[in-house]
Amino acid sequence: MASLNKKNVRSYKSASKNTPELILDAAEELMSRRGFHGVSIREIANLAEVHLGSVTYHFGTKENLLEAIYERHAQPMNLRRSDLLAEAARITNLSERLLAIVRAFVVPAFSSQSDVSGGGARFTRVRAILSMEGNEAAQRIIASNFDETSAAFVDAVLECCPRANRSSVVWRCHFLLGSLYYTLVSGERIDRLTHGDSSGADHHRAIDELSHSFAAAFSDLQNNNDTPVTKTEERQT
Amino acid sequence: MASLNKKNVRSYKSASKNTPELILDAAEELMSRRGFHGVSIREIANLAEVHLGSVTYHFGTKENLLEAIYERHAQPMNLRRSDLLAEAARITNLSERLLAIVRAFVVPAFSSQSDVSGGGARFTRVRAILSMEGNEAAQRIIASNFDETSAAFVDAVLECCPRANRSSVVWRCHFLLGSLYYTLVSGERIDRLTHGDSSGADHHRAIDELSHSFAAAFSDLQNNNDTPVTKTEERQT
Repeated sequence: MASLNKKNVRSYKSASKNTPELILDAAEELMSRRGFHGVSIREIANLAEVHLGSVTYHFGTKENLLEAIYERHAQPMNLRRSDLLAEAARITNLSERLLAIVRAFVVPAFSSQSDVSGGGARFTRVRAILSMEGNEAAQRIIASNFDETSAAFVDAVLECCPRANRSSVVWRCHFLLGSLYYTLVSGERIDRLTHGDSSGADHHRAIDELSHSFAAAFSDLQNNNDTPVTKTEERQT
Repeated sequence: MASLNKKNVRSYKSASKNTPELILDAAEELMSRRGFHGVSIREIANLAEVHLGSVTYHFGTKENLLEAIYERHAQPMNLRRSDLLAEAARITNLSERLLAIVRAFVVPAFSSQSDVSGGGARFTRVRAILSMEGNEAAQRIIASNFDETSAAFVDAVLECCPRANRSSVVWRCHFLLGSLYYTLVSGERIDRLTHGDSSGADHHRAIDELSHSFAAAFSDLQNNNDTPVTKTEERQT
């Protein structure tokens, strides 16, 4: 496991952040590496260089801390996605538009760590690890923060691929999210299997490969393939 | 988090498994839910209904336990993949062959839990959670157990898509693995976003959607797209 980036948290401090923000930064840094269960309130206080009682005073429980982390990212991240989605919708060429739609979903998730609110790779790592932990608090928070944006994304894809089945688009969006998470937490295998020709840490390349892969996966739904579709699954708009 | 499946472990016991097997079953069950860090040797002993000293006697450390879990699955799982891959290679129609190649990779990962050795959904969940934990022991074990099979898979895809760039195939294989992991640990979002029309727990559907998505993503590499390729990345065979 990579060493904790205490310097990052300290540099926030020098930029005169307030105590709750310092605590949130520390919690996010730790949870992006060890998940929810693997981190104690005491460790968060230590990394933030505040008293233990200060964490309890500002946030109460670890669940509340998690909710606050989501709150400060979800809204700005959804806004960025909406902006990009609205621009994508203006493109007349359907395959170009589809590619732009997928990029609207992917690009905000990869933005640099310094861009603290509005997504970013560290927040995406938190979401990835929590999803794998099967964390119930996280599932509830994700539902309330992201399901609306995800539905808008599914609808935008369906407009480009009108012959596609809605539930198949949902499945493939799910794969897109899984691919994105896995790339951000476990890219070192790409270095190994390409013998160093490509690096899993190359976010520019990751965005390009992801968006082309999934534009192709969505386009494929325009063709008739053998995906089984139940009778109840008429297309919903 | 779902409750622990103590009954599963007990039923193994009644099938007259020996103590090391009982310990491995318990460790696998617990790690598939809480990862490596979230599980103690004591909890493993409790679930297996053996003495703590017995775990230490048979395995020594938690790392050794993890290695033993991989050992009993990796070899049979790789064999199943190789068998399926060899059959796929006999198909003359290239798009049918490509689909069969992807299925050779995906199907063994989804086999039922009762099929204890040779892959299976529970073992795949262990791998998923460990990959998200950034576990170093797991990375080392994965490299020694799976890199060879993954390289064979990449080569098989390249034979169907001779104009594809090798490193792009590696990237997309990585996405396939991420999609597969994410579906097995976090499928409930599919139920929610399809309003119950489809279930993330439907492995048959998961296999079909995954294989069609990634056959499309690999085929896409036959076309010229704008994926940036560095000069050192000449195709390697």
